[in-house]
Amino acid sequence: MSERVVLAYSGGLDTSVGIGWIAEETGAEVVAVAVDVGQGGEDMDVIRKRALECGAVEAVVADARDEFAEQYCLPALQANALYMDRYPLVSALSRPVIVKHLVEAAKYHGATTVSHGCTGKGNDQVRFEVGIGALAPDLKVVAPVRDFAWTREKAIAWAEERDLPIDVSKKSPYSIDQNVWGRAVETGFLEDIWNAPIEDVYSYTANPAEPRDPDELVITFDRGVPVAIDGETVTVLQAIQELNRRAGAQGVGRLDIVEDRLVGIKSREVYEAPGAIALITAHQELENVTVERDLARFKRTVEQRWGELVYDGLWFSPLKDSLDAFIASTQQHVSGDVRLTLHAGRAVVTGRRSEQSLYDFNLATYDEGDTFDQSLAKGFVQLWGLPSKIAAKRDQAFHH
Amino acid sequence: MSERVVLAYSGGLDTSVGIGWIAEETGAEVVAVAVDVGQGGEDMDVIRKRALECGAVEAVVADARDEFAEQYCLPALQANALYMDRYPLVSALSRPVIVKHLVEAAKYHGATTVSHGCTGKGNDQVRFEVGIGALAPDLKVVAPVRDFAWTREKAIAWAEERDLPIDVSKKSPYSIDQNVWGRAVETGFLEDIWNAPIEDVYSYTANPAEPRDPDELVITFDRGVPVAIDGETVTVLQAIQELNRRAGAQGVGRLDIVEDRLVGIKSREVYEAPGAIALITAHQELENVTVERDLARFKRTVEQRWGELVYDGLWFSPLKDSLDAFIASTQQHVSGDVRLTLHAGRAVVTGRRSEQSLYDFNLATYDEGDTFDQSLAKGFVQLWGLPSKIAAKRDQAFHH
Amino acid sequence: MSERVVLAYSGGLDTSVGIGWIAEETGAEVVAVAVDVGQGGEDMDVIRKRALECGAVEAVVADARDEFAEQYCLPALQANALYMDRYPLVSALSRPVIVKHLVEAAKYHGATTVSHGCTGKGNDQVRFEVGIGALAPDLKVVAPVRDFAWTREKAIAWAEERDLPIDVSKKSPYSIDQNVWGRAVETGFLEDIWNAPIEDVYSYTANPAEPRDPDELVITFDRGVPVAIDGETVTVLQAIQELNRRAGAQGVGRLDIVEDRLVGIKSREVYEAPGAIALITAHQELENVTVERDLARFKRTVEQRWGELVYDGLWFSPLKDSLDAFIASTQQHVSGDVRLTLHAGRAVVTGRRSEQSLYDFNLATYDEGDTFDQSLAKGFVQLWGLPSKIAAKRDQAFHH
Amino acid sequence: MSERVVLAYSGGLDTSVGIGWIAEETGAEVVAVAVDVGQGGEDMDVIRKRALECGAVEAVVADARDEFAEQYCLPALQANALYMDRYPLVSALSRPVIVKHLVEAAKYHGATTVSHGCTGKGNDQVRFEVGIGALAPDLKVVAPVRDFAWTREKAIAWAEERDLPIDVSKKSPYSIDQNVWGRAVETGFLEDIWNAPIEDVYSYTANPAEPRDPDELVITFDRGVPVAIDGETVTVLQAIQELNRRAGAQGVGRLDIVEDRLVGIKSREVYEAPGAIALITAHQELENVTVERDLARFKRTVEQRWGELVYDGLWFSPLKDSLDAFIASTQQHVSGDVRLTLHAGRAVVTGRRSEQSLYDFNLATYDEGDTFDQSLAKGFVQLWGLPSKIAAKRDQAFHH
Repeated sequence: MSERVVLAYSGGLDTSVGIGWIAEETGAEVVAVAVDVGQGGEDMDVIRKRALECGAVEAVVADARDEFAEQYCLPALQANALYMDRYPLVSALSRPVIVKHLVEAAKYHGATTVSHGCTGKGNDQVRFEVGIGALAPDLKVVAPVRDFAWTREKAIAWAEERDLPIDVSKKSPYSIDQNVWGRAVETGFLEDIWNAPIEDVYSYTANPAEPRDPDELVITFDRGVPVAIDGETVTVLQAIQELNRRAGAQGVGRLDIVEDRLVGIKSREVYEAPGAIALITAHQELENVTVERDLARFKRTVEQRWGELVYDGLWFSPLKDSLDAFIASTQQHVSGDVRLTLHAGRAVVTGRRSEQSLYDFNLATYDEGDTFDQSLAKGFVQLWGLPSKIAAKRDQAFHH
Repeated sequence: MSERVVLAYSGGLDTSVGIGWIAEETGAEVVAVAVDVGQGGEDMDVIRKRALECGAVEAVVADARDEFAEQYCLPALQANALYMDRYPLVSALSRPVIVKHLVEAAKYHGATTVSHGCTGKGNDQVRFEVGIGALAPDLKVVAPVRDFAWTREKAIAWAEERDLPIDVSKKSPYSIDQNVWGRAVETGFLEDIWNAPIEDVYSYTANPAEPRDPDELVITFDRGVPVAIDGETVTVLQAIQELNRRAGAQGVGRLDIVEDRLVGIKSREVYEAPGAIALITAHQELENVTVERDLARFKRTVEQRWGELVYDGLWFSPLKDSLDAFIASTQQHVSGDVRLTLHAGRAVVTGRRSEQSLYDFNLATYDEGDTFDQSLAKGFVQLWGLPSKIAAKRDQAFHH
Repeated sequence: MSERVVLAYSGGLDTSVGIGWIAEETGAEVVAVAVDVGQGGEDMDVIRKRALECGAVEAVVADARDEFAEQYCLPALQANALYMDRYPLVSALSRPVIVKHLVEAAKYHGATTVSHGCTGKGNDQVRFEVGIGALAPDLKVVAPVRDFAWTREKAIAWAEERDLPIDVSKKSPYSIDQNVWGRAVETGFLEDIWNAPIEDVYSYTANPAEPRDPDELVITFDRGVPVAIDGETVTVLQAIQELNRRAGAQGVGRLDIVEDRLVGIKSREVYEAPGAIALITAHQELENVTVERDLARFKRTVEQRWGELVYDGLWFSPLKDSLDAFIASTQQHVSGDVRLTLHAGRAVVTGRRSEQSLYDFNLATYDEGDTFDQSLAKGFVQLWGLPSKIAAKRDQAFHH
Repeated sequence: MSERVVLAYSGGLDTSVGIGWIAEETGAEVVAVAVDVGQGGEDMDVIRKRALECGAVEAVVADARDEFAEQYCLPALQANALYMDRYPLVSALSRPVIVKHLVEAAKYHGATTVSHGCTGKGNDQVRFEVGIGALAPDLKVVAPVRDFAWTREKAIAWAEERDLPIDVSKKSPYSIDQNVWGRAVETGFLEDIWNAPIEDVYSYTANPAEPRDPDELVITFDRGVPVAIDGETVTVLQAIQELNRRAGAQGVGRLDIVEDRLVGIKSREVYEAPGAIALITAHQELENVTVERDLARFKRTVEQRWGELVYDGLWFSPLKDSLDAFIASTQQHVSGDVRLTLHAGRAVVTGRRSEQSLYDFNLATYDEGDTFDQSLAKGFVQLWGLPSKIAAKRDQAFHH
């Protein structure tokens, strides 16, 4: 029996050509695996058939949308994960769930190798290969674009020679990756970092500058999980989809940054993540109300490390597991409602209420009913400032 | 000769009454010190005269606007200081410069005591008293509102009895603090955290929801300092003022959060900081372009601690000095231009250029001219993921 | 029925006098609670009877030794908790378990108030009162030594007047606190920080400078818990006790530091913690073998915060719970044997073995059997250093 | 004119053979550079001559001992740098100073390439190549042992064929690296991590278990720099050398750990660093006395990152520069005397005194002269514990 290679299949030119190329070059049978993470676009069944037409011995489509939402996007939401304080980790989140399905398919179909179409200068190669190494240390990896220097031109020539059923004419000027958590756009004229993005770049979001009426909604969280929008129960996937729709319609969630890639270079990225940004905005403010101060402060350190780790391809790693244990324990009281106004590119919290609230009106108010004992403050202030005061005395003695 | 007390004087009811009250209660002479940190509102000379009319033996007005901008706001900008990832430390920044002038006045006028009008449940008492303790450990502090349980009602009665030249009728429903870096609003109906703010609350910003044309500008930084706007040279103060005007006109910089006070309670705060938010947005992105990755990652840790420390009243502290040394050393290459669009409540970076850029087009591009050697990636990925892979092998052996 | 006060009772002069003093001053009935945390010294039953003789209406002795070892010392061991990189948190660990028993006794005996004998310049008042506030927010606290300025002299006079059954003559020149995790000594001539400690100060440890033969032993851990010594199964309490005995006999675990107290001052402390230091030394090295690198690095950050938090009296706090969740998740593979040599004040690891080991002989060896693929290194090194290299090029261009 | 290659030359078999090998393989002229970082052993002039005899066109010996002590060891001391809380970065510190001399030699002698003899599984290749990349981004690197799979056997055969003046018989069973800051030993029977080291392994330290009299000394620091021992002025190099001698004679500074290498594997390392450990011990305690609490706490975070960064080969990096700026600013008051007892493997602080001390006897004492105002404590404790208390109330309400 031939060796088998599982190929991460997108339906596009590169991976379609990859099926035959791998088969010819290595003599292996190719199993094409397409994972639906809510990227939209083509029908997954069409993609499946194309894989077979291109020579795959098996073509598998996995509907991983709920799994992706619940096991990958939700932890990111609970971590308020924003790499470099901005980027909600769109691609970095989908790679591990794709890896999981690739590895499962490799086991099921008896493959010894996994193949992906990433280049050698991006983050995704790391996310694929480190993930595969962690889930199935014995699987080999082949990355034709990187290791055999594929180019688009070679791929087109190959496809035309063999008359593959791929339309090679419709080339986007950009490199795009999208899933339910957001959409990433790079290359093309965006590589000149002084150029502003044009409307053409965007797909998940309407132009925030166009006049329209605001949209207001209430998101209900239960222990860190969005469970209802405007009182209607939703799954995590539905919450993201609904907010993609409504926040997207208001132009919320566009991002444009110069970003530090793991492979050591800076790149310019444009993102759209209307649902992710709206949910994180609401979740952060509910945490402000329900999470104690010292915990909230340290959680920021954990959040930053979580975001770096996931960005850097280490989703399946011991540190990730332990950071998750920390974060999970912080969510037990993050329950309640957040009212958001979506308008003109902004998701703005205008109200929050929670039975788990640590905001105590009677301690906070300056009106009647104030229960805060101000006489305690003097001693607090004195001892709080004592180390600085002692140091200041020392410094003054020393400098005179 | 009588003892002298230096009073932090705002011109408002509480501190106007304070002059006479301190004099009567303690027998001391009161020196009123008003510090101009760009709070706008009343003419400072009117305030000075009122202090004298209320019984101050001396009344001093210090124009600290440039000093505040350059020595307090600028370090905050370079630290991208946002407490709880949101609040640009408006009041927390002005307290130390006020303290500095109070202490100088105390020395000049031979006072033994400093007095402030803060309550016992806010952060400002800490910032005043810890600052005074660090700059002049021997000065005493008296805080009548807190330590003698002043109320507004008592103050009005006192003022009317003595016919003080204060208009006691115009009471804002909110407690407000403002300076050139921003404006803080609290109390009133905002104490119900489910209530949305109303337009009435705002003063520095126009309603972002109203239709208007976008404003575009270019900010030039030199080693972390904003030095020009649209090519015109500005001082730091002018940069903030100009951006307050232009970003404020677009509704940029409104914030509404439940915040963790140092004294242990959560409070609800509404802020406006159009200039601060626009400048920090631009500065962060210029750092993305000019600051190396590992440095940028650790700087976030430093920034968070800087923000907490300053919020917590420890501006004059040894840790603050050392964090400043770190931050100063990160700014040497933060030079270049950032183009911003201001519109509908958002300040959005649309371009950046710098002779100090670490973005290398040739390393980043996927087009011609690519100089990135993709053959290096395979080894990198393998060793990067090796610890996770070894751990995964162990875990699998262990669980089977 | 009278009010009841639960008093944290040690059997010593201060708290013995406290029983009667509280009763007289407040008219309350006093319930004395002594908690055995392995402090040794007097028989706990003698202490119980003394409380009754001094006027307590109830006297309770709680044997909390196993609970203290398993629920307080063990988490500290798993956190490798060393405040200021030195101090294994002896007193800081016992306060919360004592608080737990005080609060339980208050509920059981219907008390409204808890009383402790701490001064106002130490850490223990904070640990008691913050703990009580967290476990029973409605209980009041009275701290006579601090709030009513008790002195030793007043206490002796009071005891002699009333003929209390306390020997007031045997006054230690030091202030001492001890439990099974260690022993703290302060005050007296140690307050001059240039003075060296004398042998007289120590009780848990023999003089390390005296000649004797080394002791060697093997500690077995199972998921972070010490479960056997030299192959004999032990409870956590027994492990600590056995190591106190054997490491103490070799003079291991003496510490002498100037320490930062939470109340803002520096104090000089001498500690003995032979069992704690031996266990932490062994545990750290077993972690070196079984915990993955990135996790180990971040765990140090968590450990530092854990130690500060517990030192600062915040054992019962939300952040503590979440740090514990992190640490617990790191211990699942910390299983194996560590061989220690105890001698002349040092606990030295000389061997480690674990079925969970991440040390891979074949990857590490330079001899036959080497499976490390050195060809991967070049690419790794190049990309690892790429950000620094790009920055260096920029800097050189800029400076020329 | 031929290309020139600068070779990091140790005088040993590998690099001696390397001279001729590089010349033959590449046609280049080899410039041998040996850097004296206090490694002791052979006379540097003998080494220089051997290089010429082996075919080098130039042979340079750089006495970098003072430079190494002042610019590399001293920053490590001020950072209290202990990788994994144990290892004082012996080899990691010497690599950058060697790199600096290699790069200077390359410029002086017109070389286009630098060569080193490191393997592909260690840290040193990273330190060399990342350092070279940062100091001279245009220099090429050749690493024959790694990139051309040299083995000891091949090297011996080559040497014997060409009759090179190298004694190939005296092979240490260990791989050793040493300099004035310490000595590293690995491989051989130490690769079995259950094996204890034997005395044979050590060279800088006497057996701590042998009976001898203690040694006591006083180290004087001026702003973080050791400037005198027992009152005699010393340079940094002399301080390290003197403490290597005296602490080494007492067996101080032996370490045996399983360590996380940057290349992703764990290795077992034995170190001796008597001077480094004695100096760090003294310096840490002087910081305990002279550095304010919050600064000391954050400095630990900086120290950990500093140690990781230097271990990981990023000495010449932007983050390293900024961490150094932080650390430098913390040392301005670290002046005073520390008394140490050296005995039986331990360096123990027994006294400290400083005109810059923040230890305030009057605030600390429980005897007469106590100036600490205990009445301040109650308010402090209440507000310090308020967030935990509010959270506890919420949790109790929620769970009932």
